[in-house]
Amino acid sequence: MTDFKRITSKDNTLIKQISLLQTSARERKKTGTFVAEGLRLLLDCYENDVRFLSLVIADEFLNKHAKEAENLFGNAKEIVVVTDAIFSKISDTKSPQGILAIIKMPENNQLQIKSNGRYIALENVADPSNLGAVSRTAEALGVDGIILSAGGCDPYSPKALRSSMGTLLRMPVIVLDNFADALKNSGLNLYACVVSGGKSINEVEFPNGSVVIIGNEANGLTDATIEISQKITIPMSGRAESLNAAVAASIAMWELVK
Amino acid sequence: MTDFKRITSKDNTLIKQISLLQTSARERKKTGTFVAEGLRLLLDCYENDVRFLSLVIADEFLNKHAKEAENLFGNAKEIVVVTDAIFSKISDTKSPQGILAIIKMPENNQLQIKSNGRYIALENVADPSNLGAVSRTAEALGVDGIILSAGGCDPYSPKALRSSMGTLLRMPVIVLDNFADALKNSGLNLYACVVSGGKSINEVEFPNGSVVIIGNEANGLTDATIEISQKITIPMSGRAESLNAAVAASIAMWELVK
Repeated sequence: MTDFKRITSKDNTLIKQISLLQTSARERKKTGTFVAEGLRLLLDCYENDVRFLSLVIADEFLNKHAKEAENLFGNAKEIVVVTDAIFSKISDTKSPQGILAIIKMPENNQLQIKSNGRYIALENVADPSNLGAVSRTAEALGVDGIILSAGGCDPYSPKALRSSMGTLLRMPVIVLDNFADALKNSGLNLYACVVSGGKSINEVEFPNGSVVIIGNEANGLTDATIEISQKITIPMSGRAESLNAAVAASIAMWELVK
Repeated sequence: MTDFKRITSKDNTLIKQISLLQTSARERKKTGTFVAEGLRLLLDCYENDVRFLSLVIADEFLNKHAKEAENLFGNAKEIVVVTDAIFSKISDTKSPQGILAIIKMPENNQLQIKSNGRYIALENVADPSNLGAVSRTAEALGVDGIILSAGGCDPYSPKALRSSMGTLLRMPVIVLDNFADALKNSGLNLYACVVSGGKSINEVEFPNGSVVIIGNEANGLTDATIEISQKITIPMSGRAESLNAAVAASIAMWELVK
């Protein structure tokens, strides 16, 4: 016995709220909720016991993929069916699949930095694709978690979630308001990855309880972060100015955990 | 004394040809030419003695950035000024800068695989962003060149050029029609990067004259390529299915050259 709610007006409160959550990091923060879109991501959530506040399905998806949708019904507090036209309006993609959910963010204060863990930290990394790629690599390589500065891109943005292939919902993600201070007090050994002038990462033996910190795509790390950290550098021999932030993070994580 | 040609009709032959080159890999191959768009990329070309067959500039760009444009005049066989509306039509980007050039591809047969070089090879990698990222990292790490299968994405596509930040025009890029056969005859030591079951890349000492081969994003490497190669694996401890192709290539190149 599954009750559906049906929405046919784009002026409906829930529809407006979904549009807002898709585009506004502030709204996501204020409400503590975000939107996850696409069947694969929702199945990932389901397998990780992430519950849906609202599961929203377009008519066409429900007709064509009733079975896949049904698997998710039990995971949702409410199920809402909308017209394809309305779904197009609230979707973040050009060719919407026709299924999304509103989800409650995990409580940030449940996550603690483990003093013997190995972490990757991103200071003000702005491109959600870079964050998504870092998360995917962090999970694959077995990094213990991702530490973010509050000034960076939102891990709950549609683009970050998508490019992380759902890994951002599984990885411990810790957002720090006072990034440098909080890292200093974390008890971790801090390694600031700088373009030049640091100790070669080849010569660093990372102990348990380490974090490698990667800076903003254009401006690198802040002085405050560099001051409290050991400087390390990925040696480069070519003429490119620097590695892409996600690639630098990948190489750093590879060295960190191996 | 610089002669400008002025085009005001979107039905002009050159305009039509540029649109075709922007969208069709077949047309690029047939004519041996491609389009490079944006000031930064064109300055890169200029610094690398890559000549322009046609330099195409929009009115607004010419008015606002006359000096930057002038630097490139001497590098062009002809200079064409078009209306902003026409430029929008032929641009590959949503917010066009207003400058592009038609360029002749380097002759593929001028490029030889050096038997003592260290190469990254991509077999049927389909996403131009991945190719661009690999090129950027290859240049930064000092890899000797990029070897591509003819079935992969086109290194002269607008998206590949853009995400490579111009490095694809500087790096030796060798496209092989019979990928596995040609690699076998190259004299290089072949290392096929497979998701599992290969020797850990940590235990491999790459000699001079090595190439690491990365497969297609969805299907991996072909059997023909795996058969002629030593299998290596990037060990993963997490639950992600596999690393992104560009990240796997980055870690492989890092180990290859260090």
